[in-house]
Formats: sequence, C-alpha cells, structure tokens
Amino acid sequence: MSGNTFGERFRVTTAGVSHGPGYLCIIDGCPPGLPLSVEDLLPDLQRRRPGQSKLTTQRDEADLPEFFSGVFQGKTDGTSIGILFRNTDQRSQDYGDIVEKYRPGHADYTFDAKYGFRDYRGGGRSSARETVCRVAAGAVAKKLLATQGVRILGYVTQVGDVQTVIHDPTAVTLEQVESTPVRCPEPEAAAKMIDLIDAVRKDRDSIGGVCEMVAVGVPPGWGEPVFDKLKADLAKAMLSLPAVTAFEYGAGFRVAHMRGSEHNDLFVPKPGGGITTTTNHHGGMLGGISSGEPIVLRVAIKPTSSLPRSQPTVNKAGEATEILTRGRHDPCLLPRFVPMGEAMLALVLVDHWLRWRSQCAPIDGMPTS
Amino acid sequence: MSGNTFGERFRVTTAGVSHGPGYLCIIDGCPPGLPLSVEDLLPDLQRRRPGQSKLTTQRDEADLPEFFSGVFQGKTDGTSIGILFRNTDQRSQDYGDIVEKYRPGHADYTFDAKYGFRDYRGGGRSSARETVCRVAAGAVAKKLLATQGVRILGYVTQVGDVQTVIHDPTAVTLEQVESTPVRCPEPEAAAKMIDLIDAVRKDRDSIGGVCEMVAVGVPPGWGEPVFDKLKADLAKAMLSLPAVTAFEYGAGFRVAHMRGSEHNDLFVPKPGGGITTTTNHHGGMLGGISSGEPIVLRVAIKPTSSLPRSQPTVNKAGEATEILTRGRHDPCLLPRFVPMGEAMLALVLVDHWLRWRSQCAPIDGMPTS
Amino acid sequence: MSGNTFGERFRVTTAGVSHGPGYLCIIDGCPPGLPLSVEDLLPDLQRRRPGQSKLTTQRDEADLPEFFSGVFQGKTDGTSIGILFRNTDQRSQDYGDIVEKYRPGHADYTFDAKYGFRDYRGGGRSSARETVCRVAAGAVAKKLLATQGVRILGYVTQVGDVQTVIHDPTAVTLEQVESTPVRCPEPEAAAKMIDLIDAVRKDRDSIGGVCEMVAVGVPPGWGEPVFDKLKADLAKAMLSLPAVTAFEYGAGFRVAHMRGSEHNDLFVPKPGGGITTTTNHHGGMLGGISSGEPIVLRVAIKPTSSLPRSQPTVNKAGEATEILTRGRHDPCLLPRFVPMGEAMLALVLVDHWLRWRSQCAPIDGMPTS
Amino acid sequence: MSGNTFGERFRVTTAGVSHGPGYLCIIDGCPPGLPLSVEDLLPDLQRRRPGQSKLTTQRDEADLPEFFSGVFQGKTDGTSIGILFRNTDQRSQDYGDIVEKYRPGHADYTFDAKYGFRDYRGGGRSSARETVCRVAAGAVAKKLLATQGVRILGYVTQVGDVQTVIHDPTAVTLEQVESTPVRCPEPEAAAKMIDLIDAVRKDRDSIGGVCEMVAVGVPPGWGEPVFDKLKADLAKAMLSLPAVTAFEYGAGFRVAHMRGSEHNDLFVPKPGGGITTTTNHHGGMLGGISSGEPIVLRVAIKPTSSLPRSQPTVNKAGEATEILTRGRHDPCLLPRFVPMGEAMLALVLVDHWLRWRSQCAPIDGMPTS
Repeated sequence: MSGNTFGERFRVTTAGVSHGPGYLCIIDGCPPGLPLSVEDLLPDLQRRRPGQSKLTTQRDEADLPEFFSGVFQGKTDGTSIGILFRNTDQRSQDYGDIVEKYRPGHADYTFDAKYGFRDYRGGGRSSARETVCRVAAGAVAKKLLATQGVRILGYVTQVGDVQTVIHDPTAVTLEQVESTPVRCPEPEAAAKMIDLIDAVRKDRDSIGGVCEMVAVGVPPGWGEPVFDKLKADLAKAMLSLPAVTAFEYGAGFRVAHMRGSEHNDLFVPKPGGGITTTTNHHGGMLGGISSGEPIVLRVAIKPTSSLPRSQPTVNKAGEATEILTRGRHDPCLLPRFVPMGEAMLALVLVDHWLRWRSQCAPIDGMPTS
Repeated sequence: MSGNTFGERFRVTTAGVSHGPGYLCIIDGCPPGLPLSVEDLLPDLQRRRPGQSKLTTQRDEADLPEFFSGVFQGKTDGTSIGILFRNTDQRSQDYGDIVEKYRPGHADYTFDAKYGFRDYRGGGRSSARETVCRVAAGAVAKKLLATQGVRILGYVTQVGDVQTVIHDPTAVTLEQVESTPVRCPEPEAAAKMIDLIDAVRKDRDSIGGVCEMVAVGVPPGWGEPVFDKLKADLAKAMLSLPAVTAFEYGAGFRVAHMRGSEHNDLFVPKPGGGITTTTNHHGGMLGGISSGEPIVLRVAIKPTSSLPRSQPTVNKAGEATEILTRGRHDPCLLPRFVPMGEAMLALVLVDHWLRWRSQCAPIDGMPTS
Repeated sequence: MSGNTFGERFRVTTAGVSHGPGYLCIIDGCPPGLPLSVEDLLPDLQRRRPGQSKLTTQRDEADLPEFFSGVFQGKTDGTSIGILFRNTDQRSQDYGDIVEKYRPGHADYTFDAKYGFRDYRGGGRSSARETVCRVAAGAVAKKLLATQGVRILGYVTQVGDVQTVIHDPTAVTLEQVESTPVRCPEPEAAAKMIDLIDAVRKDRDSIGGVCEMVAVGVPPGWGEPVFDKLKADLAKAMLSLPAVTAFEYGAGFRVAHMRGSEHNDLFVPKPGGGITTTTNHHGGMLGGISSGEPIVLRVAIKPTSSLPRSQPTVNKAGEATEILTRGRHDPCLLPRFVPMGEAMLALVLVDHWLRWRSQCAPIDGMPTS
Repeated sequence: MSGNTFGERFRVTTAGVSHGPGYLCIIDGCPPGLPLSVEDLLPDLQRRRPGQSKLTTQRDEADLPEFFSGVFQGKTDGTSIGILFRNTDQRSQDYGDIVEKYRPGHADYTFDAKYGFRDYRGGGRSSARETVCRVAAGAVAKKLLATQGVRILGYVTQVGDVQTVIHDPTAVTLEQVESTPVRCPEPEAAAKMIDLIDAVRKDRDSIGGVCEMVAVGVPPGWGEPVFDKLKADLAKAMLSLPAVTAFEYGAGFRVAHMRGSEHNDLFVPKPGGGITTTTNHHGGMLGGISSGEPIVLRVAIKPTSSLPRSQPTVNKAGEATEILTRGRHDPCLLPRFVPMGEAMLALVLVDHWLRWRSQCAPIDGMPTS
C-alpha cells in the first residue's frame, strides 16, 4: 500500500484529488452506539474551510459530507463508516504552467520522480484539500473521546515573529480560540498576528507559525512502551499533515538546555486522591504512556509555498524557467491548521484508547493465580 | 499488539528486559543475498555500549549478537533474521526503593497505571537497553542502504547551552564524529561539551542536548504522499526512542519566523544533469517524498531522569516520600544516542526503499496504453 | 479496525450497504502506469451482476463505477484509487419481518449479538452486494497480473449432485465458461446443472455447489514461507467471501486417502529448460510458495439461505415465530460466484507479486561478498 | 515483511531454523495479569514433540521454553512475551544430497526460486520444527480463552481410508483423545489407524488424514463481517500450517450437495434463555461471526513428503537424478498435528476476542442519544 491509511484500531483510509469528483473517506473500527450525524462533522469542517476570512484563501468549498454506511438510525453501527465529499468549486482552468514546471516547495517534482507522472490539477493527491477527510474523521474521534471525558483544543501561538506563551493551556476555551480569525486565544497577540498576515498578503508573500495543542482528561495508561509510544504516534500524526516541519511535546527543544534536576517533574499526592506532578515538562507522557497530566504539544507550519508572484524554477526537461502560481492561497496556513491538528491528535488518542481497551481493560474471569 | 514491532516492509520486532536473560530481535523482510556477519553489527553496538568513557555510564554490557536464522553461509537468505543478546551484567541487587516508589521522569508510574504492575528490575521493558535491538537492526539497514549509495551519519550539536552549527552536514565524516567521546565533530564545541558534562556529573546532575542526523544519497521518490510521509515516519521513529522530546527537519521550528519567499528552495538545473535546489530548507523532503537533496533532521534529548541524588516522589500507595536511584547512569545521553538515532533513520529509509521497490520500480511487460 | 481492508501491498478497503446510497472502494498500492478505464472493470462487474439469467436473481443493479482518484489521463498514477458505486435499485419497501426476526442462515442474529443492533435493510453491511467492490478491485489486479503473463479463470464444477471433473484446467477458455449461464465449461454437465437449478427454483428452494479456479503463468517464488503462505492467503481470501464453506487446493481433501509415494509430484527437467513436475497434486504451491505449475483450487458454496418460503425462526425477544424472506434471490449462487472467486484469487496473487518485488527482485549494487 | 508474524492483536512473530541454534518467539498484545509459567506450555509442547511413539518420528527435541520478557512474578505483565527454544538434537551430518537435489513435495525448489539459495540444513526455515513456536503461543492463547469459558480440542477422524464420524464433537474429552497414540477418540477406529500407520511405515511410505477441531463456549459476536470473517481467519491459520491442503467448517464440502431448506439451521429459543439452532451445519459461524454454537472445522493433511526410499527428482542444474532423504520422519503427520491445529484455532479466537474487546465491549459514558 502507499500510505493512504492512518491508525491501527480506528483506521482512516482516504482517496480523492482536489480537482476530481471529490473525496472518499472510510473509518474502520468505530465502536457501535455512538450518536452521530452530519451535523456533528460540520463545525470542524467549517473551521477547516477556505474562505472564512481575508486571512485565508477565498476558495469556496462546500465540504458537505454524505454517509454511505456505518451510521444507522442516528448511531454508529460498528461497520465501516463511509463518507463522500463532492468537490464543488473546481473552476475550469488551464493548468498550463503547472503541467510542465515544478512549483517551489511543492510535491510536483517528487511526485514525478516517484511515479513518473502526476495529476497536476490543483496538486492532485498532494493537495491539502485531502485534510477534509481527516477533519471529518477527527470529529468522530473527538465525539468518542468526549465519552471518556477527554477534551481537545488547539490554538495559534506564533505567526512570524509574533509569539505568545499560554501559561495554562488547560484554561483556554474554544470560544477564546474562535473569537479571532487567527485562532490565537490571547487577544493582543492575535491582533498583531492579523496585522502581520495582512501585511504579508499585501507583499504577495506568506508566513509560517506555531500551533499548540492540548488534550485534557486523558487518563494514565494510554500509549505503548516501545515503538508505538504515544509521543511517537503523535509526532507521526502531526508530521503527516502538509506543511508541518517540526514537533515537540512538553518542554520540547528546551530540554536541550535543561538539567535533570530542573526537568524532572516530581510526583506528589493529588488532592482528593491519586497522583499528580508539580510541573508538566513531560507534556503528559512518560515512557510513551499518558500520565494523566494534560498532553501538550506544538508544531511548526511552514509559510505557504504557493506565492502570487513569479518564482524561478525548472521545467520537466530540467531547464531553468519561471513559474507564476495562479489560484487563491492562504497567506498563512495557521488559522486553518488548528482543526487539522486537533483532528490528528484526536485520531491518535482514540486509537490508543481502543488499544488500551483491547489489552488492558479489566477481564472478567481472570484468575488471580 | 502492544507496539513491539517497527516498520512495514523491513520489520523489527523485539522482546526482552534489562534484568532478564536478554533480548530477542527479529527482522522480517530483509532481501536475500546481503553479505552479513556478526562483525557488521559490532561497530554500532560498540558505539551504543555503556562504559565507553567517563561521559557515559560505567555499566559493562557485552552486547554480542547471536544469529538464529536469516543468515546462511555469510549472506542473508530472505527468511526472518533472529538475533539473541544475552544480558551479562545483571548485578544481583535489591530493588527496594524502586519496587514501591515512582522514579521521577521514568515510566514506573505509567506502567503501573497501564498494566496494574510492572517488572521493576532496572526499568524492565521500559529500559533503554532495548535499543540494543534497534542498533543491531539499524546496522543491517545501513548495509542495505549502502548498496543504494545512501550514507547515514549523526552527531551532537548541542549539550546544555553549548551549541554549534554544522554548515555543511554532508561534509562531516564518521572519523570526525568519533574523534571525541561526545560525538560532536566540531572540536572546540566538543571540548566545551565534555567540560560541561563533567561538571554536571560532579554536580550529581544530568544535562540534555540536540543530535543532528543526515542521510546523503537518498534518490528522489522515497516516501508516501499522504499519511506515511517520509517526514512523518522519521518523526515517529525518532520519538519512539527513549528521552526524545522534539523533532524537526530542514528549517524545522525556524519556519515559524520565515516568509515563503525566503523559505522556498528554488529548483535549478543540476550541473551534470538532473535537478537540485539552491538551498535545503526542505531538509530533503517535499510533499513527504525525498527530493534527492540531503535529508537533515534534529532531535532533542532530555537530561537523564535518573540522578545520583535523593528526589521527592510518591509511593504506590500515593504517599509522599523520597527516592534515591541507585545504579550507574549517563550524565548526558547524547553521545550514546548518536548510533540509536542513526539506526532509526536507517530503518525508516530502508522501509521506504522497499516500498518504492514494491510499487514504483519499473515493471517489465507494462503496456504503454 | 473491523476488517474492512484486504491485502498487505495491494490493499482494498470498502464501505457501503446494500440499501444505502452506494459503495466506496479504495485500492492502495497499485503501481503507476497501468492503462485503466471504467471499461476495464465492466466485464467482470457484468458477470457478477444480478439479473443475467433466470438462474440468478432478477434484481437490477447498474454497478457503474466512478473513479475519484488514482487514474489520470487513462493510467493509474500510483495514488489511492477511489471508486464510487451508486446504488440504484433500492425499492422503497417495508422491512417489517426482517427488522424483528432473524433470517435462518443469515448474519442478522450475529450482527445483533456483536453490535447491539444492525442496519437491517437488505442485510446492511452483511449483504453480498459488497462484492461489487471486490470484483472491481479484482479487475485491476487481473490487468496487473496480465503484464506478468498470469491468467486467471474460474468455473463451476458441481451443482448439487451434478458434478464434473475438468482434467486439464489450463485448457479451459473464458468463452467456454461464458457459453452457458451456469458457467460450467462442460456442456453436458452445464445442461444438467441448469435443469437442476430450474427445478430447485420451482421448489422455492436453493442449491449449493463447487467452483474451481486456476491461475496459469504464475512464476515460481511467490508466497511467504511461514504464516503468509500463498495457500494460506488464498484460503482466507476465499473464505472471506459470503457463502463459502470450504477450500482446497491441488489434491485437497483427497490427500487424506493418499500415500506419500502416490502424492509426491516428482520433479523432472522441463522441455526447453527449467523444472516441472510430472503431476500437480500440489496445486502449484510447495512450502507456501508458487512452484511455477498451475495454481488450482476449489471452494464450496452453500445454498442460498434466503428462500421464498416461510421458515421457522425466533425474533429479537427470543420467541419462536416464522419468517418469510421477501425480495429476489438466486436459487444457486454458483454462476455469479465465479467472478468473485476470480477477483479474490487475483487480489492475493498481485499482493504476493508486490511482496516479491519488494524483497526478492534483484538489487542493483548488491555486493557479492 | 516476509510473513513471519501471525495475528492482529495477539501477534506471534518467529525466527529460527531446524538446524541452527534454536527458535525465537515473540508474542505481542497479551493482556497483563494472566498467571503463566513454563509448565503451562509443556503439555502441548510434549504433544507436539517428535518421538512420542513409533507412529511419529524418533527425533528427540527437548523443546524447553525460556521466557525472556512478558512474564514477571508468575504473571504476564503486558509487555512482549519473548520465548527462546534451543535446538538440542542437531546431529552433525553431511547434507550432501539435499544440498544439490530437490526433495519431492518439499520447499527446496521454491525457496531456491524465490531467494536464489536456501539454508538446506533440515529444511531450514521451511522445517515444521517452526511449529514449536506456534504451539507455545497457542498454549498462552488457550489459557486466555479459558478465562472466557472457551475450550478447544482437536482429534484425528481419518487416516487413509480409515474414517470415523464424531457425532457430538462437544462430548469428546482430552483424555479420550490422548488415550491412543493416534489421537482418535474412537477406540475401534484408532486401533485400525494405528495398524495402518504401522503398515505404511513398514512399506517405507507415508499416509495422509483428517483432523477435526472444535471450540466450545465461544460467545456470539466474535469475528468481523467482511474480509476478516472468523471463518476466513481460521482458514488462513490452518492453511498456514505445513502439509495442510484443505479446510472446511460446519457442513463444509457437503453443502454442494445440499438444498437451502436442508442446510439452513433454524433458530429456536434456548432452554434457560437466549437463542440456539436446531442443527449446526453453520459450524458456529454466520456472516463470519460466531453464533454461540460450537465452532467445528476440519483440515486435510497430506502424507509426509520425506520417504525413506529413493525418489526420482532433479538437481539444481535441472538434471534428472535420484534422492534418498535421510533422517527420521513421521509416517503419518496426524497425531502430532493435533496440538498444532488446536494452537492455531486458539490464536485466531483470542485475536478476535481482543478485537471484540477493542470495538464492541460496552463503553462507560456512552450517551444514548
């Protein structure tokens, strides 16, 4: 297979291209009995949608999912959930430049190198429009996690040189995040980010940034000790998203500067029972397994590669040329990235919850010796 | 399964604990005909070994592999490669403290939370001694990659606040890396790192750092476009290693500060034929697929959690107490991390090479229409 | 996951129910460059279709596939092949009986036991209409196998007590198979089978049978030696089809009566070079690996469980009652089974071909010592 | 990978060859807390062992397992269970004939065709000695299944033309099976089978047979509806065993002769509550999912290919020659097959039980709408 499936137990498989008839998404392994309707998917799909504000691309994609199976009489029924998205905003256009020339920062050249040729229409299979499937599957995962008291939220902490630090990630609310089009919950920083993106857009340029995500309520014990560490699967999930170039959890790259006596989070009794830690440098994961503390992670997103200006490049014959990428593009990917990152976080957590159920949930009838 | 297997096509499965009889490692999917002997595995095993210098722990582990199958008459034969490592340096000791108390920064608590109890001897399955299997498998992977002209090398670029920047990662040699016990190829920085680690050790403390790794010679076309992007599988591989808290490739977290016009690596004709880029912010991967440019990545490693000093913690009953971790521990994990990181990089690359062979290698008999 | 994916390298994932909007099929791992169009899929879809003759059900399903990705400018492009089938013949009907009562021989009861409830419309996910996806994927697999000189054919050898023995399976042609509606290449037996099915239909009953399949041209060396033996994957493939109750290859169950001196196929030089066997009791597979001789296997298909007559059963409350299954059903599944069995045979072979390519295809640059 | 792993959730990976240092077996996914010791594995290992009677080969293999991880203080601890078997009875021998000539019915030729060369010592990786790992893993699986009230038993029903029918498979006891060396629970048939095997042995020949297996106590709801049907995974499991040429469950190949009105098992209320069927033609599986009725299946085992007599064959150069297979071989594989078949049955059931736990076990906190 060529990597179009994500997850072991809650498994998402996708097909589709940005300028074909649409996208197919199949979710395998969802427990039966979860109340689910198209309406449950729409809010995150709407957050992912292009055209939400002048900060994002002005393309209009309806992104209306249609269930083909797996949901019956308003509940998941345990069989594979099939979802169809029809593409609606495929402008008839000539693809002249992109057919023969390689866009800098894009997958055009590597696709040609790998497959010999490529569907060049809108990036084909490499288009980020593919994340519509991830966000839909993530919405189902979020709803499952909610039954376990797990809440997921992402927000923007950096755009270019505008940075903010959220001191208590667990206190951020969805309302705060959604209150500005840039999805930064700190209003002052948000305003600066918006100004910066606007300036960048006017420069016909783009800008990168950082998204932080947090999962609250994950009980201790999710994650596998060796290769499928929770941190490892989260890193893969995040880096599988387009434009993500870096991942860290807890203290992240700052650990390089730290001493053990400073980095070690000390265990203390939890008021009301149980165990907690005085600090959370470990980002909620120890030995690859959730500790019960909030899971906190950050990813870097590169500036959009498509720029509304001419850039030097080469053509398929290897000759120097210039390319002007037409179409509407986000000057900054961060605002629309938030629901994508949340979706991948949710998919990994639900997968490890199902693994925990399989192996570690208590077994009736287990003898004690 | 509980995550003791890594890889899709070149698949490594392990068992074993640090204070049991030893480790079992099974490699599945290795092509037949590769000349291979125990001697091919020893150099990297020796680099991973404890007790190499005063910078690393003084434990003595022989780490001598024994082949059980998969190698016949000096060559891999295509069947599963079974490797046994006997543990030799298991001191008879009482594990008093660790039995009942949770070491800060370790997996003791999360194992108990997940499984109900744990093998507490030397960390049991959570011990980093498990990486002996990864390094052995990585040595086989490196030898396979060498047949394709791919060379892999890692080195230390940061210990605490001592940092260095390697401007041309492709020019670093194994000899340079191995010329100091800290495995930093820049001698001045290396000297400072050694002093720092020594000071930290005398403080009965530990220190974190950064390891950079590079793969030269990877042809364009390895990696899958959607979920199994090469960058995604590399992120998982690295984060699956103990103590790794962050991953970045190419410009990594620096992309957050960059504009698209600055970040985009421009394609230009390659002298002698083909295509190259003027810069390598993309770290050798575009759209999740190798571009032919050097693959460059960095990971952060936290300071050793085990400290030769008393630390506050709780016991299994949830009561506050103190713990003194006995045993010999590395004051800095970085020097011994280098071969582990290289091994994981090699395992991911060989896996994607085999995927490429399966799907994308030319097919005799394919009609043209 | 809940088992909606088949294959390791050429991976088919499906969703859909018989009385929902349609079926989604995603094929992952297909090599790029294969000429492919909807027309390539239609012949086998037509053979699978209901309503071909009075021997089969009179439902009318258009079964027109629509490609969503993976095919570009008339060729596979290496990305996931997405196929959509719209359901067209869903009569508005009341499902009264089937909602509350368990049809004998069907999955109604086991679905309820597993999932708590079920999509009862036309059998929901347990409907054999799901095989439309398999047949489409199988058509792609057959086209790939043809590039390697592999030809696949199935035919009916038994319906009820009417049996025939095909002495040279490699000599049977598609034309012979398709010359009668029962898909038995031996005309006299075919006539008797047709009469029998007709009689059974008039009795408002159904009848079982046997389908034999053959793959010619498979080179020696496909299949894995231990768990993923070619015979094992074929057995799984066949038993994954609805109504299949038995599988055998080569001498099959007859081996129980045989002595080794009789059963052993002796190797002899092949005229023109190479090696062949004097007999083919081993059905083209030795040690789980293809031998180069024709692969020959047989499966038994049970009589249709749905009968146009009242049958005793129980309802969901566990009370005795009677059920009359409405709808149009095949009095004998065998004629329509042929393309389904061929599809599964093709899917397994293409999967093992891709495995062979990954691991065993010659490697340029491999040193000899 | 090359097929050295079995199972999705309870995953067995093996390495080793018959004339190397031994076998490695890694079991991944076993729930923690199961009391387990070497002694639990010995009875089935002893039943599998050569040299039990004159009916089986006189090789002496100690088959003493050593745990490397996964068992701590007498219980499974949730981590990967590593098991080592040392080979002890490797006679120093010259392998002259087998090096250059292909044994009829063996994998010698297909291994050479696949891998280019092979470990010829005792069959190398194709040796049935590999089943020692399966039987050990199966013993763990059986112990897990016992916690769910599931009991597994196999027995021989046919050797050559000596056949018996067990009318109530659920009534057979382990004591009855073990009361004769041929493992047929019907004493009269057992005596005839023993005589036949003895005669065949004196003829320097071998003989095939049939083994029937039953699982009692499997609750309704295990198995997946589409590709991973319980019947499909059982078929693969059985055909993955050496020498197995056919599989059937329930009425098996007899369904070809049956009408639906005869084959359909009617549901009736179960005395004391629940649902049962009046007959069990469906062998305990409907729609690929267990029905709660006993699971009954049968497999055919071919006569041993190794014969203590000279047989015509070809050498690696493709020239006609003769081969005399030395060594000690079973004149009939059936008696030793019984624990192997039981082990595979147990492995599949425990895998599907864990799948059920993952997806279908009740979820605390699931909303009802």
